[in-house]
Amino acid sequence: MPEPVVTAAVIVIGNEILSGRTKDVNVAYLARQLTALGIVLAEVRMVRDDERAIIAAVNALRAQHDYVFTTGGIGPTHDDITCEAVARAFGLPYRINPEAERILVDFYRDTGRELNEARMRMAHTPEGATLIDNPVSRAPGFRVENVHVLAGIPAVMRAMFESVAPTLKGGRTVKSREVAVLLGEGDVAARLEGLQERYPALEIGSYPFVRDGSFGTTLVLRGTDEAEIDSAAGELCTILRELGGEPESPPAPPAPVG
Amino acid sequence: MPEPVVTAAVIVIGNEILSGRTKDVNVAYLARQLTALGIVLAEVRMVRDDERAIIAAVNALRAQHDYVFTTGGIGPTHDDITCEAVARAFGLPYRINPEAERILVDFYRDTGRELNEARMRMAHTPEGATLIDNPVSRAPGFRVENVHVLAGIPAVMRAMFESVAPTLKGGRTVKSREVAVLLGEGDVAARLEGLQERYPALEIGSYPFVRDGSFGTTLVLRGTDEAEIDSAAGELCTILRELGGEPESPPAPPAPVG
Repeated sequence: MPEPVVTAAVIVIGNEILSGRTKDVNVAYLARQLTALGIVLAEVRMVRDDERAIIAAVNALRAQHDYVFTTGGIGPTHDDITCEAVARAFGLPYRINPEAERILVDFYRDTGRELNEARMRMAHTPEGATLIDNPVSRAPGFRVENVHVLAGIPAVMRAMFESVAPTLKGGRTVKSREVAVLLGEGDVAARLEGLQERYPALEIGSYPFVRDGSFGTTLVLRGTDEAEIDSAAGELCTILRELGGEPESPPAPPAPVG
Repeated sequence: MPEPVVTAAVIVIGNEILSGRTKDVNVAYLARQLTALGIVLAEVRMVRDDERAIIAAVNALRAQHDYVFTTGGIGPTHDDITCEAVARAFGLPYRINPEAERILVDFYRDTGRELNEARMRMAHTPEGATLIDNPVSRAPGFRVENVHVLAGIPAVMRAMFESVAPTLKGGRTVKSREVAVLLGEGDVAARLEGLQERYPALEIGSYPFVRDGSFGTTLVLRGTDEAEIDSAAGELCTILRELGGEPESPPAPPAPVG
């Protein structure tokens, strides 16, 4: 029996992302990490610092996916409302977490800065949450059931994800192979569709590029069975030569069209 | 009477984004452009090349927002399923659009390349769709009601958005002012919350950074009334000086924490 597909969703929270002030870089990181763990990132939502929007996204996605990861909105200021919104999404009380409090008390004592009321916001979690270690700036993230609440600052988010990664159970790892060719997408499309029909278990993607003024296409074969990918890649190269192209594998990094 | 808030949503479509192979850059562009037009980008969803997922996102978001923009999945290959999925979302027949056909016939005749069956996919739209001009690679996007279907390749997406922009009606343009200070977020949080309470019409955001090993915070004031922003910015600078910081406005670009 094949291993089940394990899926995840990411929720990026913050007005600064949706106003264009800040460019999100967390989705690309999480996409790569989850893929490497054999977890399919099925959906991403980016929402504003708005309690109803956060609750709606958390509740929709935690019901559909094995794992949900949120990024952003867990700091000490009034616009950091993620933690409380997650508590409401689960119908849980939002309280001081004694373990988080101890971490913050130690950290601010050691650094000689004041653990004021605002910073104590970061000691609150939904009741019963499991903390996620933050080796960068100490204030922890947390997990409730399948929802992991991470920081938005990329270095902190990455450190928290690394703390969590060993606890995640992936499915079979997806392998991929890329072949580039100096033919237009429209030139390879029909034969590619036939290849996809012969290999329904593979995901065959086609991405155009322009190099030195010539149209080219990168074909990506993805699947969990390496022998099947090898076989399809062999057929693909034959097809591309028949169409008058010379497959490049591994392809030289193409200049993106954009 | 204040002008109503105009909102938009963006749907990014493509397995390559969610696998981490390709980094999305379209959201940041659209976020900035929409903000400049006085349109609030309220939500982004990124979904796979999966008909059900695309239909669900299109139907959820077109009901909630004034404008929806999709990017990706409108090329000639089998994995380009956005156009047909949008037709299904609206319950419209998916047919050859005579105007799109004429554009493609002319383009491929002029460039001496073959307008084959695969490329003719790009002449199909939901029945009654309005075409969106593509000055870069000719194959058009289209609009059905409030849903704008754009390319995924950034240069093409941008050209299509520029074609559409004059047809969009924004609300009052949101202005913003940034002040940076070398104080931690937790040091300014309480006073900032008070400021937010005194200016409920403004959106006050707080973003931490580290510069030369010191913690700093960028405060962003956003709103439609410039006089109100000026007034709040004045109070903010007074607060920051009282807390022992020196407000920098316009702030020197801080090194992001991440």
